[in-house]
Amino acid sequence: MTTPAKDSLPKPPRALDFAAATPPLTHIIGAGLIGASIGIGLVAEGWDVTIDDNDAVAARLAQRIGAGRSPGAELSPQLVVVAVPPSAASAVVSDALTRWPAAVVTDVASVKAPIAKAAHATGYADRYVGSHPMAGREISGGLGAQGDLFKARPWVMCPNGATADAIEIVRQIPRALQCDVVMMDAEAHDAAVARVSHAPQVAASAVAAALGTLSPADVALAGQGLRDVTRIAASEAGMWADIARMNHHALVATLDHIIGDLEDVKEADDIGEALTDLIERGRIEVARIPGKHGGAQRDYTAVTVIVPDEPGQLLRLLGDVTDVGVNVEDIAIEHSPRQPVGLTTLYVLSARARELTDVLSDKNWEIAAS
Amino acid sequence: MTTPAKDSLPKPPRALDFAAATPPLTHIIGAGLIGASIGIGLVAEGWDVTIDDNDAVAARLAQRIGAGRSPGAELSPQLVVVAVPPSAASAVVSDALTRWPAAVVTDVASVKAPIAKAAHATGYADRYVGSHPMAGREISGGLGAQGDLFKARPWVMCPNGATADAIEIVRQIPRALQCDVVMMDAEAHDAAVARVSHAPQVAASAVAAALGTLSPADVALAGQGLRDVTRIAASEAGMWADIARMNHHALVATLDHIIGDLEDVKEADDIGEALTDLIERGRIEVARIPGKHGGAQRDYTAVTVIVPDEPGQLLRLLGDVTDVGVNVEDIAIEHSPRQPVGLTTLYVLSARARELTDVLSDKNWEIAAS
Repeated sequence: MTTPAKDSLPKPPRALDFAAATPPLTHIIGAGLIGASIGIGLVAEGWDVTIDDNDAVAARLAQRIGAGRSPGAELSPQLVVVAVPPSAASAVVSDALTRWPAAVVTDVASVKAPIAKAAHATGYADRYVGSHPMAGREISGGLGAQGDLFKARPWVMCPNGATADAIEIVRQIPRALQCDVVMMDAEAHDAAVARVSHAPQVAASAVAAALGTLSPADVALAGQGLRDVTRIAASEAGMWADIARMNHHALVATLDHIIGDLEDVKEADDIGEALTDLIERGRIEVARIPGKHGGAQRDYTAVTVIVPDEPGQLLRLLGDVTDVGVNVEDIAIEHSPRQPVGLTTLYVLSARARELTDVLSDKNWEIAAS
Repeated sequence: MTTPAKDSLPKPPRALDFAAATPPLTHIIGAGLIGASIGIGLVAEGWDVTIDDNDAVAARLAQRIGAGRSPGAELSPQLVVVAVPPSAASAVVSDALTRWPAAVVTDVASVKAPIAKAAHATGYADRYVGSHPMAGREISGGLGAQGDLFKARPWVMCPNGATADAIEIVRQIPRALQCDVVMMDAEAHDAAVARVSHAPQVAASAVAAALGTLSPADVALAGQGLRDVTRIAASEAGMWADIARMNHHALVATLDHIIGDLEDVKEADDIGEALTDLIERGRIEVARIPGKHGGAQRDYTAVTVIVPDEPGQLLRLLGDVTDVGVNVEDIAIEHSPRQPVGLTTLYVLSARARELTDVLSDKNWEIAAS
């Protein structure tokens, strides 16, 4: 009965507690879309943030839209976020590690091993943690900055031998921005993004470029399959040159893999058999791409409905779906050339698909396929 | 004043008038998804259709679900639709041309030149018109048959020297099924589908297969780009072996083009410059893929909204969008791993995007990017 209550015992000071309690004084170098978005998000969470850019106009703009204060002359940040183009990141990270001996430094480039190597060369790599916030679609420019840009997306951290304190300080950023933290080795990260991001971009562009021999009428035969495959081929070249140069080894290894498979199909004695084999191997891998919420992919059925292309029709359809109490897991809208209707495919739990098509038919929706 | 009124003049009999007036007595060979769906669609339009299959169970099933009558002993169709697997189409088309000297014959295989060649070899190619109804997502089996399967989709016709009468008779099918008729040369069709359909499937499968070296955690870094590129890689191998064999020449030429572009990136002195060049060339081609209603692609802006993953939330969002009076041109739903929210991207006319984001923000939707 004389034992003090657990809550009243003093806790030992730990980096984690410090991290959770006090956001570090943070300096962001680079006021483009990524840097400014991080700044806005952190400021919104009450952090003290300064932001700068060697483009004075971009810096002032970022400061004006609430991405951080202008840094004073005697800047001594606890955390430095390097958000410059990938090709400049190694030099700016190295410079920051040297300039601020008490600061933890991170960067946001989408290739991590070359920057980690440069950080190690400074001798201060125990204060460097690489980051790769995986934002959505390609957009650029500080004007598009949004504090929520990274919300609910993966934020990869590559510690590469940084101290536990440094890791915890950097981890506060994705925690504040409500990202999903993924810890990875830098080399493993680069090998992975070569396969899940960089090579798919190259392949999509190559598939698109192969349309160059076709007439407009030929191209008009395109269906949803081609549209899906080439959607990212519409992206601007932007930072891809930097990314390809920095991830040269892993990208070339992945292209080798893809070229090898295409050559095998092309040169097979029986092209049909070779393609069947490739499709079967591809299906196994596609099934490993996680579905929603990181769970295994569930068993969904596609229900395709013919929807007049008028405002409100899609809403009416989803209203009828909601009345049935069926959750729509995914939607694809496919427009038909020269006809004023669209085909809307709803992906729903297979167990509910039959019920859904029955009810929609009763409500006079035309079901094209299910 | 004694000239008879134009309307009372007898019109010369023309195939077109006959065709418009009386649907031809039609026999469908093959009771799988395509054959049965065509049958259901034509019967619904009042056509007299018989349907058969060398699998007696499939034939009876198709007849029971209203895809046509059982053919009697003295069958003499005016129009024969061959809806058998592509590898069997040449033989069945040739047999039909020989067996029914008064009938016009078409087929629905997705490769056209080899079948046209076989038809020409019979000497009856003036009664053969190739068809390629471009249905949507890959589904198979007569049980999934739907009369609307082809509605509002392109239906390619390859006349290859058939008579005008034969062409008009075949044209009645896509007209009855409300398809969008596209007339093409068979060789041009095969070259086009190699680039808009067959090679994209091979490339998507190869991109997917390259994920084979990755751990589950690596694969979990996949974003919407990879999901788009590999969506068709989830298709079953199904008829792809037949298609690749029959369209060998055009498919290999397209794979050569794609491999060449990938090799150029891989082996470039400056991989960044080579990739930029490929991306720029790809963007030009992607811009040629028609948008909705066959028009030029319009200027759309993507507005990404954070949507709680609960039934009814998507409906609520679209309701709010409709209140603004903005038409949603396309939707993509992206689920974030391990978080109970989805990112829904609405594609809307760029001129309305700002207004939409303002209103949605007012209604407490979180805009992730626009």
